[in-house]
Amino acid sequence: MNAPLDRISGTIELPQPYVLFLGDTTIAGFAKTAFGLRDWAPEKCVGEIRLAGATVTTGLDAVPPAEAYARGARALVIGVANQGGVIPPSWRASLVEALEAGLDLVAGMHMRLADIPELAEAAHRLGRQLIDVRVPPPHIPVATGRKRSGKRLLTVGTDCALGKKYTALALARAFRDRGVDTDFRASGQTGIMIAGGGIPMDAVVSDFEAGAAELLSPDAAPGHWDVIEGQGALTHPSYAAVSLGLLHGSQPDVFVVCHEPGRTEMLGTAGYALTSVEEIVELTIALGRRTNPAIRCGGFSFNTFALGDAEAAELMARESKRLGLPVADPIRGGPAFDALVGSCLA
Amino acid sequence: MNAPLDRISGTIELPQPYVLFLGDTTIAGFAKTAFGLRDWAPEKCVGEIRLAGATVTTGLDAVPPAEAYARGARALVIGVANQGGVIPPSWRASLVEALEAGLDLVAGMHMRLADIPELAEAAHRLGRQLIDVRVPPPHIPVATGRKRSGKRLLTVGTDCALGKKYTALALARAFRDRGVDTDFRASGQTGIMIAGGGIPMDAVVSDFEAGAAELLSPDAAPGHWDVIEGQGALTHPSYAAVSLGLLHGSQPDVFVVCHEPGRTEMLGTAGYALTSVEEIVELTIALGRRTNPAIRCGGFSFNTFALGDAEAAELMARESKRLGLPVADPIRGGPAFDALVGSCLA
Repeated sequence: MNAPLDRISGTIELPQPYVLFLGDTTIAGFAKTAFGLRDWAPEKCVGEIRLAGATVTTGLDAVPPAEAYARGARALVIGVANQGGVIPPSWRASLVEALEAGLDLVAGMHMRLADIPELAEAAHRLGRQLIDVRVPPPHIPVATGRKRSGKRLLTVGTDCALGKKYTALALARAFRDRGVDTDFRASGQTGIMIAGGGIPMDAVVSDFEAGAAELLSPDAAPGHWDVIEGQGALTHPSYAAVSLGLLHGSQPDVFVVCHEPGRTEMLGTAGYALTSVEEIVELTIALGRRTNPAIRCGGFSFNTFALGDAEAAELMARESKRLGLPVADPIRGGPAFDALVGSCLA
Repeated sequence: MNAPLDRISGTIELPQPYVLFLGDTTIAGFAKTAFGLRDWAPEKCVGEIRLAGATVTTGLDAVPPAEAYARGARALVIGVANQGGVIPPSWRASLVEALEAGLDLVAGMHMRLADIPELAEAAHRLGRQLIDVRVPPPHIPVATGRKRSGKRLLTVGTDCALGKKYTALALARAFRDRGVDTDFRASGQTGIMIAGGGIPMDAVVSDFEAGAAELLSPDAAPGHWDVIEGQGALTHPSYAAVSLGLLHGSQPDVFVVCHEPGRTEMLGTAGYALTSVEEIVELTIALGRRTNPAIRCGGFSFNTFALGDAEAAELMARESKRLGLPVADPIRGGPAFDALVGSCLA
């Protein structure tokens, strides 16, 4: 019943498929995890569970726990956050019902599932698992630096929270659409739920950070690609340790720099100007070549959410010319994104 | 009775002075911690405790626990390691006797003191502490990147285990000898025992690595120096995450590059050539200027243990000329080391 799972691979592996739990939420922004699962792992989602008062829906079938189990679900995923990351008392009866129906519980909130006595008791009584995707697996080894087989792409960024996960998911899907054998490798909690496994890299003890990244993308066939979700930024005053351990352990052949035009300051730090994309390219090569001398930049992923269509297209074309590599917004897709995919696979 | 201590400062703080426990060791190399404490913190050491069969001694007075307490000792420090980092049954009666005499126990071995039932029971019964200096304090915050007052020096390196702690200790002592108000800041277990406090940086969760470094060297008077013990290397395939978080959070004004001439491969990784000192200077400036734009290299500390006097002097003079900064071996001292100290304080 204890989180996390400790499997042979050394990474978290989640029971699947899922039923998505939305609680009684009325704010769509709080259900980003549920929407992410619907959009990126529809084959893993048999339906959703909403409580009375909920107005947000993923559009999937509403299925009570027993029916979800009958449809194949093996875990209930809490797909909604709320202020403070707590699991309110109003959700608990429903979560116990899920355990009784045969489902494990998966969450990535600040409050730990196992710290709620009624859930801990029910899980223990029923032999179910309470899995917290914020908790890294035990026994992560120190990195060896040994070169692994297969190809790897890492998304890096000029800051946190500007599209590294989305870019990795979009590239992995595009690689597969071109017939390339590809795995998305998740390094954060939402990504781990989408992938059904992974390692929450920011929660790993720093001595083992690169070792965790080595576990995350194991040896593979020569033509296989791992597309690895990046974390933080090498120039982020708070989180660069995570980024460097992930870079060294990932040994990427190719990296894509994620950026949000118009953002001027690093997230969460007062007075730190955003780094330029060129500086991130330089630092990523200077540091990444240590474990993969052939590392190269495949191009740039711009988050142009705040711009109009024409403005975004003009900006990306101009920046692509200036930087000498494709610049695309994976949400907009189109020929620019095709060019980015082509450049990464070249 | 639980390790670690949680004090206002957020760092480990050890009860002092110490009595040094040598067990029944017969191999001087296993007693490096005891020798380090004798050499660098003699004012903290009231004596030593040896068991029957021991042949190694620090030369300090042999004092049983009750006498150590009477001389002012407040902690027994296990100053000896052994194969596997275990605490053998033959030591335990003596450790319980120390607890009964009023001493807390301090250790940094793989085996945790609190995992030994007789020690846990005695500490609980007597209200004593079992302190493991390998365990970071709880509640380390995320780094803010806020610039702190006072001056800071960080020792960095071309690899692990080549003199970063020794160099920091020697520089801190030399700064004090010149009348400069200076603290040595310890980032590893032996350093923590010597300093009487610090944070084991390699054991901190990576998201909080830079935050821990910010705690380690707090705001100080404008003319005060913190001399911070470095960890790992920015180019070490296993441990670079530790090095980068420590660099960002330390915000050093000055760094000294520690190096062992003749070492050709990185410790613990097969096939990784040692990085050049120039590359470490470049990377340290490229990354360190993020949190301190005025960062500069103060010079180089060479571990010339394997060389004869003339050979070492000739090498250091030649390298100093080539690199344009002082090169010294702090163990040899002399004018070269004076020049290094002067360059750091310039």
